[in-house]
Amino acid sequence: MLYLALIHYPVKNRNNEIIASAVTNLDIHDIARAAKTYGAEAFFVVSPLEDQRALVSKIIRHWETGAGAVYNRDRKEALATVTVRPGLKDVLNDIRNQTGKAPLLVATTAAEAMANLSFEDFRRRLLKKDRPWLLLLGTGWGLSDELIGSSDFLLEPIRGNTGYNHLSVRSAASVILDRLLGRS
Amino acid sequence: MLYLALIHYPVKNRNNEIIASAVTNLDIHDIARAAKTYGAEAFFVVSPLEDQRALVSKIIRHWETGAGAVYNRDRKEALATVTVRPGLKDVLNDIRNQTGKAPLLVATTAAEAMANLSFEDFRRRLLKKDRPWLLLLGTGWGLSDELIGSSDFLLEPIRGNTGYNHLSVRSAASVILDRLLGRS
Repeated sequence: MLYLALIHYPVKNRNNEIIASAVTNLDIHDIARAAKTYGAEAFFVVSPLEDQRALVSKIIRHWETGAGAVYNRDRKEALATVTVRPGLKDVLNDIRNQTGKAPLLVATTAAEAMANLSFEDFRRRLLKKDRPWLLLLGTGWGLSDELIGSSDFLLEPIRGNTGYNHLSVRSAASVILDRLLGRS
Repeated sequence: MLYLALIHYPVKNRNNEIIASAVTNLDIHDIARAAKTYGAEAFFVVSPLEDQRALVSKIIRHWETGAGAVYNRDRKEALATVTVRPGLKDVLNDIRNQTGKAPLLVATTAAEAMANLSFEDFRRRLLKKDRPWLLLLGTGWGLSDELIGSSDFLLEPIRGNTGYNHLSVRSAASVILDRLLGRS
């Protein structure tokens, strides 16, 4: 049972300061479509900023019940996976209410850091379907060190086959879902 | 030797008509970053519309030599992989000039169609490094049937693990690159 959370706070900016990042429209669309394609349970968009949450809600409404619902029904289905929440605590509550269990938190990073969970191991654990897992995706320049430190696991970074490793969070989310849940 | 081409004509719209689609800014960024991360040789953005090509060139210039180059050097490196061309013929010429060989064309589709190339087979062929391959990515509602028909291969669709299969072209490109060139 894999849940996704796109975190807009606490994340780093390019100067390593903790900020609340702005929501990017296509993050919502792309990650919702990937979540739906790969069968993730739900996709939480997390921001403490009320205007940003209102923006996401407006996007969802447009595609769920507005003009977009008529224009593109596939998009409507994808955006039905999205829930907007102010903080991680709210997400944990939601998952606990839905599943009766607290999820294990898996942080992500593009840095060659102290990862303690391989894709292979994570995939194997998910196959047991015995508990919820929450994957934390960072916007801006990535999740805060404190958030990474307080998570249960840190997933190994996606490595291409070059020294360069700067995928968008949209690309990273898609590749992670493919590695964890894609048909092998 | 894997080359990518993002095709804006001929592609289908939602009514199955052939159109020239508009360029999406984040397609350029996301696919360039993925191409660079996974070590694709080059990323061609193909549009017959002069104003669309001018737009892409402007985006590239901003990040290569404008304000963006100072702001984010990683992005500059990624966008250095991008070349804008009016038609597929121009792309084939470029690759022939660079490598001395005509590339094999691999079309892509999200439909469960007459695919004749699996990811595994394609990965194995690429490992030989004996010739250029050009992967065609469709915008809009996908590559025209004629373009698919005139390609050498049609790559199997990405399957998640649900009946739903509507990834963005940005997500699809990232997953395809990971499957073909990612470290195993």
